[in-house]
Amino acid sequence: MIYNSNEDTVAALATAGGTGAIACIRVSGRESVEIVSRIFFLRKGNFSESASGRMRMGSIMSGNELLDEALAVIFRSPGSYTGEDVVEISCHGSQYIVRKILSLLIENGCRLARPGEYTQRAFLNGKMDLSQAEAVADLIASSSASAHRIALNQMRGGFSNKLRELRTELLDFVSLIELELDFSEEDVEFADRNKLSGLVSHIAGTIDRLVESFEAGNAIKNGIPVAIVGETNTGKSTLLNLLLHDEKAIVSEIHGTTRDAIEDCISIGGILFRFIDTAGIRETRDAVETVGIERTFRKIGEADIVLWLVDVNSENARIEELAKKILPPSAGKKLILVFNKLDCAEPDDAVQKEHLLADSIPDRLFISARHKINIDRLENALVEAGYLPETDSQDVTVTNVRHFEALKNARQAILRVENGLAQNIPGELLSRDIRECMGFLGEITGEISTDEILGNIFGKFCIGK
Amino acid sequence: MIYNSNEDTVAALATAGGTGAIACIRVSGRESVEIVSRIFFLRKGNFSESASGRMRMGSIMSGNELLDEALAVIFRSPGSYTGEDVVEISCHGSQYIVRKILSLLIENGCRLARPGEYTQRAFLNGKMDLSQAEAVADLIASSSASAHRIALNQMRGGFSNKLRELRTELLDFVSLIELELDFSEEDVEFADRNKLSGLVSHIAGTIDRLVESFEAGNAIKNGIPVAIVGETNTGKSTLLNLLLHDEKAIVSEIHGTTRDAIEDCISIGGILFRFIDTAGIRETRDAVETVGIERTFRKIGEADIVLWLVDVNSENARIEELAKKILPPSAGKKLILVFNKLDCAEPDDAVQKEHLLADSIPDRLFISARHKINIDRLENALVEAGYLPETDSQDVTVTNVRHFEALKNARQAILRVENGLAQNIPGELLSRDIRECMGFLGEITGEISTDEILGNIFGKFCIGK
Repeated sequence: MIYNSNEDTVAALATAGGTGAIACIRVSGRESVEIVSRIFFLRKGNFSESASGRMRMGSIMSGNELLDEALAVIFRSPGSYTGEDVVEISCHGSQYIVRKILSLLIENGCRLARPGEYTQRAFLNGKMDLSQAEAVADLIASSSASAHRIALNQMRGGFSNKLRELRTELLDFVSLIELELDFSEEDVEFADRNKLSGLVSHIAGTIDRLVESFEAGNAIKNGIPVAIVGETNTGKSTLLNLLLHDEKAIVSEIHGTTRDAIEDCISIGGILFRFIDTAGIRETRDAVETVGIERTFRKIGEADIVLWLVDVNSENARIEELAKKILPPSAGKKLILVFNKLDCAEPDDAVQKEHLLADSIPDRLFISARHKINIDRLENALVEAGYLPETDSQDVTVTNVRHFEALKNARQAILRVENGLAQNIPGELLSRDIRECMGFLGEITGEISTDEILGNIFGKFCIGK
Repeated sequence: MIYNSNEDTVAALATAGGTGAIACIRVSGRESVEIVSRIFFLRKGNFSESASGRMRMGSIMSGNELLDEALAVIFRSPGSYTGEDVVEISCHGSQYIVRKILSLLIENGCRLARPGEYTQRAFLNGKMDLSQAEAVADLIASSSASAHRIALNQMRGGFSNKLRELRTELLDFVSLIELELDFSEEDVEFADRNKLSGLVSHIAGTIDRLVESFEAGNAIKNGIPVAIVGETNTGKSTLLNLLLHDEKAIVSEIHGTTRDAIEDCISIGGILFRFIDTAGIRETRDAVETVGIERTFRKIGEADIVLWLVDVNSENARIEELAKKILPPSAGKKLILVFNKLDCAEPDDAVQKEHLLADSIPDRLFISARHKINIDRLENALVEAGYLPETDSQDVTVTNVRHFEALKNARQAILRVENGLAQNIPGELLSRDIRECMGFLGEITGEISTDEILGNIFGKFCIGK
């Protein structure tokens, strides 16, 4: 299976771009050792004879000129990431040096790796299946404990094993059905229809659970959507900045690499929250008839959690009036009433608000965003509201839209099998539907794949992976 | 000498920040192997027993939870970068994973490394001297072939060897002088004053050459300053953007790490150019009496190369008038007259300009910035103008302000010795001046250093180096 994919030897920077203390360049392919040996020289002996996994110190030479002193290590096929011979060069983390080394490698016969090409080669060389390969990208992009856990589990083959089980069960089933077809003149039934029916229900149930896990999985991967709504001047942006503090830039950067829009995301207590941008409700003469308010109320629809921010000094009547607008779109969502500006409140004000609207909104908090009072409580409330039933590490959660679509198709097919069994349709038709279901499941792991699918998947990787 | 510096074991990300395929975390110190072994587990055997330089595949565990599958390698003292036991962990390049691994290391007894701490430890453990350590930072920041060559030579000890030679010669000299002092009653002269005088001249000459190399060295490191001057609407910014094209961001980023101000820098033909921001000269009613023009002419003073950009359709009289303002501040600099908008010119216009001002400005080019005509010629002209006599790899070029200052002080001291010899001053005074000169040279390599100097130097490094 090795080397069937691509005869080229490829090279790319594997560490993040930018200046660091060290950078790592990865070379993979049949000629990787030979090519690197033409530019990397040990003080004694020949680099190409190095044992697999042994880091060697040497000189990167551009002709007679020393370019850098670096470390390099060979991982020989098949015991490498791609399954091919791989060389990793750790050089000084200067962009000039990295560019020069890549140029040297190209002059000596490499080409630059395409995005995701290393992982694609690992897939094509049988080192991992497609869902595992996709998990590598998810793992790198994951920015919360739960997203990380799911990606790691998927990369280690948790999801693949589940799918393999399903496919094996379906294969056993279809084999029996097809055996009957071979003996069709004799009108025998090798496959006990009742037993089959039970098996199909079981499989349909498993696929259902996987499909259903997608909603939670998607929230884990992309963040639980939270809308902070409230009138202007209630401290919305102060609160948002407080919640996002320093991590905002980091988290945004991660998301910028995998999504088009950069949103304000933050991981609190291991859960990723995504804050939906809503306009502040403006107070106008005619009470709650406000500009932009309709749009904000529509935005509530996108959220799972709604933080309603209220100035603790607001009049009760006004709050009750606003509630009429905010409660309906918040139905079925977690709504938390947050009284801000606790620092400016008369003690009476807060007490007075303790029970306001308590029937419709049991969850309430008193905070001061400016003075950072009770922010930890608010964070706890968010974590509690965002809590998803803990998946034990064996449990599989679907986070990938492609997998979700394939599973939905597989569910359609298995439902046809279920109905077919109930209506006692001919074995040929049953067999066709079962094989279709197997096909959809096989798409996920890549047992059945097209160049287009592969191009789509690996094109989204970063270069160097 | 090992471990005398700091008892702590330190950890930091060594590769660039941001998301990549892989990231590398470096742990250094007495307990590095022990600490990593508490969170990194091989499938078989104990990581702490791994041979030096052997990359091992294993699992990073946070308690019972798998955090990542990673590679790790031990470099045992003293054969490591810092001279201490070092462990390098190559994990998936997710910022989440990197943060988590660093947290785990800290929980297990590491502290985060200060900027430059690895290199500082290497210095304190005698793995390199101070000028070599400084060269590491220069090497990482270098963005042109010549800056890279100088930094690499300095890191490999080229400069240090030169200084060691000088100090040895001075030491021999001062020993003889001080021997005389021991026998002062007998009025002997062990040190042949004529020979000494020759030696001092030789040393003074070497120091002079080093001091003089700083100007070129500084230009190499920080870029040769180029001013593009010209009236508004001559295409100054189009040309600048063209010259800077994609590399601007990269080069700026590098410089942002080592300097306060980000300027437009680009490496052309292996030479780094730094473009000085000048305001366009505005055409006003009263000829060349223009707003902001004085400022632009002052800016010319900072440049080594002046590109005077002229619209090829301008009237000759106007150009000649401008020349009166531009020529004086350009005296002693390389001035290139660039006629832009060649695409809009009548053939006659260009011909007419062939000899305009040819006596005072022999170098002229006809280009079209918009249509990218003759830009390669302009680049060649810049490279030619920016050419510095090729330093052979043994030759030392001073690029560091701290070294420059120390060398200037050393020169003062050696001049005092020279004069003292001529005036036949007492041996005690000669000896004092020679030792002072040796002291200044020793500051460069760190043989003589203070905590303040060290703090200054290593504080400018990035974390992880």
